[in-house]
Amino acid sequence: MHGFSSSERVRIPLDDRSYDIAIGTGLLDDPAAYEAARPGSQALIVTNTTVGPLYAERLASVLARRHAKVLRIELPDGEQYKTWESLNLIFDALLGGGADRKTTLYALGGGVVGDMTGFAAACYMRGVPFVQVPTTLLAQVDSSVGGKTAINHPLGKNMIGAFHQPLAVVCDLDVLKTLPPRELSAGLAEVIKYGPIADMAFLDWIEANIDALRACEPAALAHAVKRSCQIKADVVGQDEREAGLRAILNFGHTFGHAIEAGMGYGAWLHGEAVGAGMVMAAELSRGLGLVDAAFVQRLTRLIQRAGLPTRGAVIDTHDNAGRYLQLMRVDKKAEGGEIRFVVIDGPGRAAVRAAPDALVRQVIDRCCA
Amino acid sequence: MHGFSSSERVRIPLDDRSYDIAIGTGLLDDPAAYEAARPGSQALIVTNTTVGPLYAERLASVLARRHAKVLRIELPDGEQYKTWESLNLIFDALLGGGADRKTTLYALGGGVVGDMTGFAAACYMRGVPFVQVPTTLLAQVDSSVGGKTAINHPLGKNMIGAFHQPLAVVCDLDVLKTLPPRELSAGLAEVIKYGPIADMAFLDWIEANIDALRACEPAALAHAVKRSCQIKADVVGQDEREAGLRAILNFGHTFGHAIEAGMGYGAWLHGEAVGAGMVMAAELSRGLGLVDAAFVQRLTRLIQRAGLPTRGAVIDTHDNAGRYLQLMRVDKKAEGGEIRFVVIDGPGRAAVRAAPDALVRQVIDRCCA
Repeated sequence: MHGFSSSERVRIPLDDRSYDIAIGTGLLDDPAAYEAARPGSQALIVTNTTVGPLYAERLASVLARRHAKVLRIELPDGEQYKTWESLNLIFDALLGGGADRKTTLYALGGGVVGDMTGFAAACYMRGVPFVQVPTTLLAQVDSSVGGKTAINHPLGKNMIGAFHQPLAVVCDLDVLKTLPPRELSAGLAEVIKYGPIADMAFLDWIEANIDALRACEPAALAHAVKRSCQIKADVVGQDEREAGLRAILNFGHTFGHAIEAGMGYGAWLHGEAVGAGMVMAAELSRGLGLVDAAFVQRLTRLIQRAGLPTRGAVIDTHDNAGRYLQLMRVDKKAEGGEIRFVVIDGPGRAAVRAAPDALVRQVIDRCCA
Repeated sequence: MHGFSSSERVRIPLDDRSYDIAIGTGLLDDPAAYEAARPGSQALIVTNTTVGPLYAERLASVLARRHAKVLRIELPDGEQYKTWESLNLIFDALLGGGADRKTTLYALGGGVVGDMTGFAAACYMRGVPFVQVPTTLLAQVDSSVGGKTAINHPLGKNMIGAFHQPLAVVCDLDVLKTLPPRELSAGLAEVIKYGPIADMAFLDWIEANIDALRACEPAALAHAVKRSCQIKADVVGQDEREAGLRAILNFGHTFGHAIEAGMGYGAWLHGEAVGAGMVMAAELSRGLGLVDAAFVQRLTRLIQRAGLPTRGAVIDTHDNAGRYLQLMRVDKKAEGGEIRFVVIDGPGRAAVRAAPDALVRQVIDRCCA
């Protein structure tokens, strides 16, 4: 099937860790998409029980031209499996298959598969290369790019992980056709995110094209993935290890992670939690006097049109705001117990700020179901 | 008690990851030894049930001057506990204690505590700083230096880990006084190692001072730790991530790791396995025509005088050599199923080589109990 692909590339500029995101159609079966991987070495495809039956055979076929041996493992599907136990299944497969230090891992799936495969690659024999082959919109526009890998801990999301950049990211837009509408909407949350933090013209474009995106129109998806990756590449290129700027990509995530952990991982999709979390973060920004009510309304309306929840979950019926605060205090941006929020500091510009507990409580009370 | 310390420093030159090893007496209680750690942040002391009761209180006292809050955790003692389960105890302590991204971890113990604390620091919130406070000779001369961190997998030693450099290494020679003789001998294996791979004059010195070292004479220990750290600093400074040269530090370890995994982690101390492993690696070097019998005898004699086993364990009564080969094929230096051994390529010089299975089998048959 190769030879019929069509793609554009976005470069992540990170010195000797630089790599390309290929975005286009027909890429899954295109040998050229995998040329960054060392030829001759072994490969392990990590996927899940949903994506594996759809695409693993095709990926294995194209990789068999490049690698001496192609192993496969299917993990259970869902955020609730982003754990040590699943990670150990990857290590068992690697050691059981005789995988050496030059083995290349391939993450074929969404954000959970990508995060776990990347973390396994970071740790196996203290580091082996890996390639991201994201099959969800969320993974194509956000999680597969930038080298953040992690698993969850019961007390906090993505608490255990590593920065480990892939050799390449292969975004085949064709695979999005099999994505359930709920997953597509979840991915749109991370697309929308880039507008208020960095590019209001992109937000205009998303508003004008939200229906086309939800209908999976190829040209609309191609632009959304490409522009999202460009913005992410720009941010990550300036601040790979989140010394500062990179934190803005977590807009909506501080509240969102509290929803995910508070409801139990997997109850809400990550993108759904980020959708409601962005509304809460926008509301907090308004409370801090940084944006006006019209801005919050505009963003809320778009999140709703994307098919996402715009109200946070009630995660504790006795003291909902207190439970949010408790969970947010272990956020990675927190320092000395002080939560630091990504806020919108005027349309198109994000900042990281502390906020008074009383105001945060008000926002939570106002924004939860 | 501070103000009475006496120490020398060895620098590990790694650009922005450079740090000092302080070697001397009275360092445990000396605030100056910990000045590389960020003041004001939280600290977590990770130790084990053997070392904790002896030294954790003293370390906590001196750290209380520097850190806002000092948490502690004691892990079970022994190589058999270098596992995910123990690692998770560290993460539980960190998250339960509200440890943020600026928290400093302190490894107070031997190689197992150091390797696990370092790996926890590498992964917690994708990386926090840590300090090594090694309390065994083995950790002071080898494992605490150079940033290799890991846990074991049932199928192979140190298979899951990271390169993560400490902020500082604090080698207080006084704490070696409480070291059991068996642990002291295990540490001498890693001291002896530096002679044949890099410095035959140091080997002469060890031979002349082996009784003083076993008697824990301060001047002898001070020199052994310092010279060992200098050689390791030189090697690690040239090849932090083991692209090549650094592998020579694994002399004796390929056979040794097979003994440890084959006997069950903890049955042999790591240094004991390395002792017998060096005899086997020297014998292999002889079989490859690289050194003569007198060299093997000399090294074997010194290993024996250090109180270490000079014969490998029988790890399988039916096919001992076959089991060694099977375990060694998952060694991190192996490539495509071919085992690569650190051999002595003439006294004072190491090389990494493959060897015919038949020869390796002969060596194992000749060298095992």
